[in-house]
Amino acid sequence: MSKLWGGRFSGGTDALMERFNASFPFDRRLYNEDIQGSIAYAGALERAGVITADEGALLRQGLEMVLAEFREGAFSPQASDEDIHTAVERRLSELIGPLAGKLHTGRSRNDQVATDLRLYLRGNLAERRQDLRRLQAAALALAERHTDVLMPGYTHLQRAQPVRFSHWLLSYFWAWERDISRLDDLQRRANVLPLGSGALAGTPLKLDRHALARELGFEGPCQNSMDGVRDRDFVVEALAWAALVSVHLSQLAEDLVVWSSNEVNFVRVADAYATGSSLMPQKRNPDSLELVRGKAGRIIGDLSGLLTVLKGLPSTYNKDLQEDKEALFDALDTLALAVPIVAGVIETLEVQPERMLAALDAAMLSTDVADYLVGKGIPFREAHALAGRAVQRAEELSCQISQLSLAEWQAISPLFGEDVTELFSWEASVNRRDSYGGTSLRALREQIREARERLMNRDSSEVKADAS
Amino acid sequence: MSKLWGGRFSGGTDALMERFNASFPFDRRLYNEDIQGSIAYAGALERAGVITADEGALLRQGLEMVLAEFREGAFSPQASDEDIHTAVERRLSELIGPLAGKLHTGRSRNDQVATDLRLYLRGNLAERRQDLRRLQAAALALAERHTDVLMPGYTHLQRAQPVRFSHWLLSYFWAWERDISRLDDLQRRANVLPLGSGALAGTPLKLDRHALARELGFEGPCQNSMDGVRDRDFVVEALAWAALVSVHLSQLAEDLVVWSSNEVNFVRVADAYATGSSLMPQKRNPDSLELVRGKAGRIIGDLSGLLTVLKGLPSTYNKDLQEDKEALFDALDTLALAVPIVAGVIETLEVQPERMLAALDAAMLSTDVADYLVGKGIPFREAHALAGRAVQRAEELSCQISQLSLAEWQAISPLFGEDVTELFSWEASVNRRDSYGGTSLRALREQIREARERLMNRDSSEVKADAS
Amino acid sequence: MSKLWGGRFSGGTDALMERFNASFPFDRRLYNEDIQGSIAYAGALERAGVITADEGALLRQGLEMVLAEFREGAFSPQASDEDIHTAVERRLSELIGPLAGKLHTGRSRNDQVATDLRLYLRGNLAERRQDLRRLQAAALALAERHTDVLMPGYTHLQRAQPVRFSHWLLSYFWAWERDISRLDDLQRRANVLPLGSGALAGTPLKLDRHALARELGFEGPCQNSMDGVRDRDFVVEALAWAALVSVHLSQLAEDLVVWSSNEVNFVRVADAYATGSSLMPQKRNPDSLELVRGKAGRIIGDLSGLLTVLKGLPSTYNKDLQEDKEALFDALDTLALAVPIVAGVIETLEVQPERMLAALDAAMLSTDVADYLVGKGIPFREAHALAGRAVQRAEELSCQISQLSLAEWQAISPLFGEDVTELFSWEASVNRRDSYGGTSLRALREQIREARERLMNRDSSEVKADAS
Amino acid sequence: MSKLWGGRFSGGTDALMERFNASFPFDRRLYNEDIQGSIAYAGALERAGVITADEGALLRQGLEMVLAEFREGAFSPQASDEDIHTAVERRLSELIGPLAGKLHTGRSRNDQVATDLRLYLRGNLAERRQDLRRLQAAALALAERHTDVLMPGYTHLQRAQPVRFSHWLLSYFWAWERDISRLDDLQRRANVLPLGSGALAGTPLKLDRHALARELGFEGPCQNSMDGVRDRDFVVEALAWAALVSVHLSQLAEDLVVWSSNEVNFVRVADAYATGSSLMPQKRNPDSLELVRGKAGRIIGDLSGLLTVLKGLPSTYNKDLQEDKEALFDALDTLALAVPIVAGVIETLEVQPERMLAALDAAMLSTDVADYLVGKGIPFREAHALAGRAVQRAEELSCQISQLSLAEWQAISPLFGEDVTELFSWEASVNRRDSYGGTSLRALREQIREARERLMNRDSSEVKADAS
Repeated sequence: MSKLWGGRFSGGTDALMERFNASFPFDRRLYNEDIQGSIAYAGALERAGVITADEGALLRQGLEMVLAEFREGAFSPQASDEDIHTAVERRLSELIGPLAGKLHTGRSRNDQVATDLRLYLRGNLAERRQDLRRLQAAALALAERHTDVLMPGYTHLQRAQPVRFSHWLLSYFWAWERDISRLDDLQRRANVLPLGSGALAGTPLKLDRHALARELGFEGPCQNSMDGVRDRDFVVEALAWAALVSVHLSQLAEDLVVWSSNEVNFVRVADAYATGSSLMPQKRNPDSLELVRGKAGRIIGDLSGLLTVLKGLPSTYNKDLQEDKEALFDALDTLALAVPIVAGVIETLEVQPERMLAALDAAMLSTDVADYLVGKGIPFREAHALAGRAVQRAEELSCQISQLSLAEWQAISPLFGEDVTELFSWEASVNRRDSYGGTSLRALREQIREARERLMNRDSSEVKADAS
Repeated sequence: MSKLWGGRFSGGTDALMERFNASFPFDRRLYNEDIQGSIAYAGALERAGVITADEGALLRQGLEMVLAEFREGAFSPQASDEDIHTAVERRLSELIGPLAGKLHTGRSRNDQVATDLRLYLRGNLAERRQDLRRLQAAALALAERHTDVLMPGYTHLQRAQPVRFSHWLLSYFWAWERDISRLDDLQRRANVLPLGSGALAGTPLKLDRHALARELGFEGPCQNSMDGVRDRDFVVEALAWAALVSVHLSQLAEDLVVWSSNEVNFVRVADAYATGSSLMPQKRNPDSLELVRGKAGRIIGDLSGLLTVLKGLPSTYNKDLQEDKEALFDALDTLALAVPIVAGVIETLEVQPERMLAALDAAMLSTDVADYLVGKGIPFREAHALAGRAVQRAEELSCQISQLSLAEWQAISPLFGEDVTELFSWEASVNRRDSYGGTSLRALREQIREARERLMNRDSSEVKADAS
Repeated sequence: MSKLWGGRFSGGTDALMERFNASFPFDRRLYNEDIQGSIAYAGALERAGVITADEGALLRQGLEMVLAEFREGAFSPQASDEDIHTAVERRLSELIGPLAGKLHTGRSRNDQVATDLRLYLRGNLAERRQDLRRLQAAALALAERHTDVLMPGYTHLQRAQPVRFSHWLLSYFWAWERDISRLDDLQRRANVLPLGSGALAGTPLKLDRHALARELGFEGPCQNSMDGVRDRDFVVEALAWAALVSVHLSQLAEDLVVWSSNEVNFVRVADAYATGSSLMPQKRNPDSLELVRGKAGRIIGDLSGLLTVLKGLPSTYNKDLQEDKEALFDALDTLALAVPIVAGVIETLEVQPERMLAALDAAMLSTDVADYLVGKGIPFREAHALAGRAVQRAEELSCQISQLSLAEWQAISPLFGEDVTELFSWEASVNRRDSYGGTSLRALREQIREARERLMNRDSSEVKADAS
Repeated sequence: MSKLWGGRFSGGTDALMERFNASFPFDRRLYNEDIQGSIAYAGALERAGVITADEGALLRQGLEMVLAEFREGAFSPQASDEDIHTAVERRLSELIGPLAGKLHTGRSRNDQVATDLRLYLRGNLAERRQDLRRLQAAALALAERHTDVLMPGYTHLQRAQPVRFSHWLLSYFWAWERDISRLDDLQRRANVLPLGSGALAGTPLKLDRHALARELGFEGPCQNSMDGVRDRDFVVEALAWAALVSVHLSQLAEDLVVWSSNEVNFVRVADAYATGSSLMPQKRNPDSLELVRGKAGRIIGDLSGLLTVLKGLPSTYNKDLQEDKEALFDALDTLALAVPIVAGVIETLEVQPERMLAALDAAMLSTDVADYLVGKGIPFREAHALAGRAVQRAEELSCQISQLSLAEWQAISPLFGEDVTELFSWEASVNRRDSYGGTSLRALREQIREARERLMNRDSSEVKADAS
């Protein structure tokens, strides 16, 4: 036996075309999903009266044997195995004879591959979700250990206002929380059964698609067979999700690469995540983080590539859709490395509080100076201008703004009193940002509590969800 | 008054740089959101004791006046209006004097612009949702009118199996249903208040951010101020959503462009959505649909552009983020035209049932021939090969497969009986695909009922949601 | 021996990080370029007095042995082989001992990998160029065989004016000619030697980089070492080139997919490039062309991914650059299959002239009708409107425009005479488009002659170019 | 008069469709090219005998009047002006009557718009080229002023080896040189005339397309009319060019943003290119550079969007092609601001040599230490390891590597002598990198000379080229 479709063909296939057409080299990783789907389908065929109970049992037994061969690395591919479906059916027929030929009744590779890929995505995303949870836990643990550490907060990579290191770190926690929220939405939407759509028009068998869906853990069957074989929304959605995850990681990586530089030196990436130079003996490069940053480009390319493939395709199945798999696998594989690596980087990160403290300079408190004037009744906009003048004056005098004399202050505005010096406390400034979501110690602790609850509650409620 | 930040600067700004930096030409459309946000913020300042009740009233009154000027097209921009926030504050100060300078207390353009953009997106997406509902309604109405129309179903743009025209059309209904589901998820996630994040570290005022969130219709305040000013997930998610909507439209457009071609001629696009040629008098081009198809490329470009902007940015606000707006506006504006246009094309589409019927050929029933043999106990794989041989035989004889003599059939397999001719009924073949989601009349009616319920139920439950 | 850089490191590397970091799985294909580069570099070291002639000979001999192992599939990788450079040096040291450690003097993997990749690209593009030439030759041969075949020319996928089939086919010849022109420009620009740039600052050895460049077939050394280790323009340019090639192929594929449809049926793709359906025995799907069409998305994704990787990178070498290779290999590998496949499709394409002729309808000559009126002195714009009215009249009468009676013509304009019927000759209409680049037989023959010359002349002048 | 194509249409156009279809709002900027093309075409019609000399003169005169109206801002658009071609012809007919209707004889908007866009691109790119030359000149001038300034060179954003500031700066000179080289190649390839292709099949008039090409400054007419109306390679090539230019700018911007940070402080961006904060009075943000960095994302989006539009389009003109213009204009407009802004930033950049010097640390010379051992006969690989140990030892002792005692050195290797201390001179280290393209003073001067020649020679030889 060879191809699943040779009946009406007379000419052979071009050898290069065989290679171009073959998806087995990359879709073979769907073997488990393909076979689980076939086992369930055999049951459905039996219930529909298409095969007998004995035939059903034999099919299932044969399929389990093929599955075992794959699992044990004992499966031996043939040149004719153009895809995983062909390969499995070919091997099944070798094992149990012509009965294997009944398995495809009413089924097409169009609905089969869509089912396989959804099953695969479901399982894979459940793992990616756990990785993200571990990442959040790593960040939260580090944040909890360093609530007292102050550092410069930046906008435009310029020193802006002092913040807590933990506050910075948790800013990523919430980005990952959104990533998980998106993942859950996507899982729900992807978890729909195409099987029973046939090639495009539905199945002529008396299949109970709702039962088949339940058996395979889907929320239900798709509502329209033509949509069922065309729909690749779930792949696009997964790639868009992955792209955004990778962008978040790239931003954290950028922060840490800059902060690992000799000039900044706020953190030190552990040896386990750094590499050296073949030429320069002193080098310790944060390669892990640079790779993470670069991978965002790769995944964005996967996404924009697949969208381009789908754009303007005519209805139902077209062979172009075969391009969905490598892009998806690439993005998921990339995240399967990148997320744990970032978690590892965080778990082993050496924080340098004294360097962070040393990088605070008094000009970062000029907003507090303006706020001081606001407290004296000056409109903020005017207060802002006066505080700006103080910064300029300090630059002229080559001193810190905190070192201006009272006379200097009063030359700027008579409203400045002796208490202006009290403004120049990092701790006090940070703790003034005390509303919900701010960087004060109180607000940070509230934030940590919420984050901790998110990890705890979700994790219990997720047991069920992840089991699906 | 000019810039909001000039205090410490001595040199002037380069003229080209002013143009490069200015966002007013495109963010002026946020005037309503910016002013509504400021009105709510004035109330919060009042409750926080930063301004008096009288000051609050005056600020609100002034803001309403500025809003009215924008609404009536009477707002007169100045060269110094670098963005909508600056423009509004500048005008406000002209109208009510230095008190205007109190409005920005504790607020930064960083949290302000993020708030404006989320408000804008929320309102805009509610409109896009209605457009999609109208589109679904148009498709459903056309599907209901044509349940009896049969046509060739295609895979690989090759005739595959007969289907109902309405079944094809509804395959898009469910794609749009997913688009709406994604929109709802995205709305929920985007509907979070950044205001109160200040520049990055939070606000030093006693602001009740939860109350402020409620007042502006948000689900709650963001949990981390540094995340609040950086987060553009909602823009990316909106663009990814828009890209997928546009891909769906491009696929429908492709179907209709091909079907409008002289060779196929299954449908005729109304004059209202077609154009002619400046050179060739006979031309009637489906320009509307070609443009819709092309727009998918444009929106995919918007998405991949913004992801690239965000990749590798350091924490909190960087000016690169200014690139978020034009991409978002472009995608939303494009859909605001494309979706109603496709709805209009569908509402006015001339369906040509007799052309569709004429395009059915007997070979499309060869799966039914294989199924016939399966009914006689032949494994499907073998039946498939035999049916393939029948197709080949018919080609050799230059006849339709339905015209093969019984002798021919029996030469292929003795299992063929006289009843083989009964297979060649389009109606019977279509109605055999009778499982859930199939193309039989019964299954189609079930599908229409479900679609109708989706439109009805949702629409009532959505009243509340859309009101937010 | 293991890593090239361990000296100052105390902690080990994380196991996942090893996998994440390793490029050997994909850069091993550079073995030939890496070793050729090292052989040349050994010579340069010798001439610079860094090693003796004996050492140079031994190094070269060892390198040849490693090369032979790779060629024969006998190279046995170790876990510590993080990249091809490490792997080669490791093996070399096993074969010839500590002398191997002299090879890296003054060299960094930064300049080494850039050199390898340029060598690889140069060789690979020379092959891609030959593929494109074969593709052009196939199209030209088919065009020459069918100069007499007329068919509808389309704009907007609507019948526009009759054209020669060969004219259509050659429209791609010139697109590929531009592809080749771009390839040649890119080759020239890419053919520059980075070696001698060291890690970033240049080499402290007395290397004659011009001589080294000549020896490796480069036009010259790069002018700036920091540019030399950062520059990936050649990869971007190659991907942009590949993307445009793939877009051209996707357009041809679209034409042929539509024309292979049962409704149009202008061409028949050979069995060698078609596949069947696992479910529907009658199917003959042009999978080859659909895959070609889909691959354009993939390559566009490669391009946009790499651009994103490069955007915003700081100067000189960053590990993100490692992402350049897989994207490049993927695009080149894809074209290495797609271009020959399209050539094969063309070489075996079955053209159906009678179907094409049957698809011509008289309305396609309405521009000729307008031109007729222009000949009588009517301004074209008015003539266009009158011809449009004739089309409309024919539609009302359900006849072809060529079947209108003289009375009908004259009701539209009294300028129509009996000779209007002479317009309705396909051959005459086509031959009227007789200017340079038009579809008349004369112009087509001129075009074929130019195309033939392009293939001939270039091919002789290219001998030298390709040898570089 | 209204549309150019209404003759056969009965229904009106949908109002939304009018807006969706209209390109006048963005293609009106092609007015000069459109009218110049028409003036040349009128001449060609005259030479072809289609119109008389008097008619030709009148047409040209009328076109000049329309042109003047556009130039003076006096052109008054009508609702029916769907594109620039329609608008011009409409106005022309108002000015000179029905004769205007003769201008379109044998011409289609398909070949007309392609001609307009090529003319526009040619002129615009000539300006972009001058901008790039100014940018190179600015960098070269700054480099020439600072040949003595030493600074840390980085790889992986970690200090690597000392380099000259000017060497770093010139690394961009050569990237822009490649950008200019690509621009020249693209200009040559784009400079081909589509006019005379008609709608797709060529022109029935006796047009001398070679003469017409010469008159409009094109290298020649396109060889195939169907290619002529489809080909958008020149737009893609321009966008790919622009994307790479923008990536180069984004990399320079990243360097300068990091170096402007308070921690690094190597350079100071002039006030003219910085902005402040609405909240934080002390801020001076390098917005210009952040915007430049962000714009790369935008242009990459333009490129990937257009490639997606083109992918899979059927032959000749499809309305999707209308999407080419806005992407092209957006990319060119963006560069027209970004390149001069970066030139301005460089021209006004304040370099801080003492900060750069202070950032050099002795470990950056550890490659020189290894080279020292190589000079004593140790293979580089072993020398690298020993130098790495010295770095490690200095870290243990919390001292600089240059402060190790001779005893410490000799504990690492007895080959170290007293002269090891001589290694620790920045100037000497830098000047050791003396090969072509290295960072020594001699090599730098050679590089500057070459760069200067490039600017001089090219600029004379370019006079002719740019005049085209």
